[in-house]
Amino acid sequence: MPNDNPPNLLPAALRQPVPRLPRVAVVGATGAVGVELIACLEQRGFPLSDLTLLASPRSAGRTMAVRGADLPVQVLDDSSLDGVHIALFSAGSAASKRYAREAARRGTIIVDNSSAFRMDPDVPLVVPEVNQAALATHHGIIANPNCVAIIAAVPLAPLHAANPIRRVIAATYQAASGAGAAAMEELRAATEAHLQGETYAPRVLAHPYAFNLFSHDAAVDLETGENGEETKVRQELRKILATPELRIGVTCVRVPVLRAHTIALTVEFDRPITVDAARDILAAAPGVRIVDDRAANHFPMPREATGQGDVLVGRLREDISDPSGRSIAMLVAGDQLLKGAALNAVQIAERLLT
Amino acid sequence: MPNDNPPNLLPAALRQPVPRLPRVAVVGATGAVGVELIACLEQRGFPLSDLTLLASPRSAGRTMAVRGADLPVQVLDDSSLDGVHIALFSAGSAASKRYAREAARRGTIIVDNSSAFRMDPDVPLVVPEVNQAALATHHGIIANPNCVAIIAAVPLAPLHAANPIRRVIAATYQAASGAGAAAMEELRAATEAHLQGETYAPRVLAHPYAFNLFSHDAAVDLETGENGEETKVRQELRKILATPELRIGVTCVRVPVLRAHTIALTVEFDRPITVDAARDILAAAPGVRIVDDRAANHFPMPREATGQGDVLVGRLREDISDPSGRSIAMLVAGDQLLKGAALNAVQIAERLLT
Repeated sequence: MPNDNPPNLLPAALRQPVPRLPRVAVVGATGAVGVELIACLEQRGFPLSDLTLLASPRSAGRTMAVRGADLPVQVLDDSSLDGVHIALFSAGSAASKRYAREAARRGTIIVDNSSAFRMDPDVPLVVPEVNQAALATHHGIIANPNCVAIIAAVPLAPLHAANPIRRVIAATYQAASGAGAAAMEELRAATEAHLQGETYAPRVLAHPYAFNLFSHDAAVDLETGENGEETKVRQELRKILATPELRIGVTCVRVPVLRAHTIALTVEFDRPITVDAARDILAAAPGVRIVDDRAANHFPMPREATGQGDVLVGRLREDISDPSGRSIAMLVAGDQLLKGAALNAVQIAERLLT
Repeated sequence: MPNDNPPNLLPAALRQPVPRLPRVAVVGATGAVGVELIACLEQRGFPLSDLTLLASPRSAGRTMAVRGADLPVQVLDDSSLDGVHIALFSAGSAASKRYAREAARRGTIIVDNSSAFRMDPDVPLVVPEVNQAALATHHGIIANPNCVAIIAAVPLAPLHAANPIRRVIAATYQAASGAGAAAMEELRAATEAHLQGETYAPRVLAHPYAFNLFSHDAAVDLETGENGEETKVRQELRKILATPELRIGVTCVRVPVLRAHTIALTVEFDRPITVDAARDILAAAPGVRIVDDRAANHFPMPREATGQGDVLVGRLREDISDPSGRSIAMLVAGDQLLKGAALNAVQIAERLLT
């Protein structure tokens, strides 16, 4: 991908430091991720002098409760980010492309939840537990990865550090939230209609969602058959893990779950690895919680991943289809809106504070 | 596994042929699969002189509508199958172990939907499209495979015949129906309660099911971490495909879907294979329907697999994690109660007719 960042975007080392109490903006404040961004800032006591909520004209006039006060939602325009030190963007790729670069040029540091800049070589793609050091290379824009890539990277990175990963085969069980608040509402409404014997015409997603699942709704490459979500997961995992040649096969599927993603992972390592060794590494890894009770049949579930920030990891076992003893299978789950999006972005912002 | 069939079980070649209009019994008639067994017999015009419906004492006194008549459900006992030529068992392993062998000894041919006899070397494990010839080896009991094994075998077998399969990695998206009618009802009730903001305590399955998923409820081997469903899929696929050494890694997951199973398959072959070649083989395979419209993002879904007998196959693409060009990824879906259970059993019974 060509490096088309204008030369006047300053690298992190030459920029003004972020003040102790920065001015912060949330762009896309009323969306599914925006709501969680605000909640994460509040709950984690993110130090700030001022919080600006921005959204498209559709949300003009709304207010949102933040720390006990009703904050107005303002319409995003070219001057909205003047004087803002850190802007958390989650308003889609088009808004990020339209506003982020100019704001970065004028001094705002952008943490962008869209896919607009993720594969730009001048933009670090960061999961703080994994590659925080990459933050030092930013030029005003830092990308928050795809939700599946984050949730997979948190357990894969510490394993990779101990024994290089050669191949990953993943099948995802992705929640409605990845398609936004409207998709979550569609899942509820379609299911309610189904239970009452009524028909429901899908409006947000292309297929019936009540008690149904379908291949991820991202567009499919007509030549290769890979869909856009799978491309993101493959490319972004390679960038986050700094393994540009990593072999990754992914199948992305949308399941009728509201807001946490689950992933079945089969991972081949460079050298033989035991399940006990993998479990020890994961148990000590930041952002991971082992949920692996074989006797109680209690493993990672979206219900328990929801509303908390860890990636749950379990079903740890040898992949018996690889007789070389170099492969491990596991099931992981994380809250798509939190660690898969808002929480990770706020964790990035926390590391920008001086 | 020891061959503990009593010597007086007659091999198929020495048995009386099944008459043109046999007497047929359905054992477990009131269960989720039993209801579908009766419907399949009706809809396919299975030739029979007499249909006996049998169940546990819990169902005593019930009647079921069959071909416009109300048939009584009788309580299964030692003499229930006297004079019955073909008995379709779907009342759980305990009932099969208790009644099937003695009935077979007395001349009834058992098509058993339970796991009781599947791995017995004297019991053929049959998917008619795949290994119908194995029927000739029966000794009065024929096993209907596990639902995931059937739904995977239908597309894998024709590919294997063209280019031997070396390794399969599968992640399942299994419906409630595999755990019975009560689990389907629990999914509905738990979801309805969730939508109304009420709590629902799981009664049938161990975990909350509304908008949630969980590792399959079969018991987990404490040493290996493999669960009982995964063991069945691995062992049964090897037996059905007559590949005792086939390398298979499976992750079985229960998703909030009512009655069709979906499976993400990554399949490695002995020799390089193109997606077009695989698609051509599958398009000509019995029991397979290709659903692979990349432009419309239309692929196999449980909603469309439900209520029909084919295995839907799509998302056909190269597994790009295998640079040797020997691996294909695909998504398949089949009705767990039909091809995964009742329909396959009735198709077996049809092949017993002379």
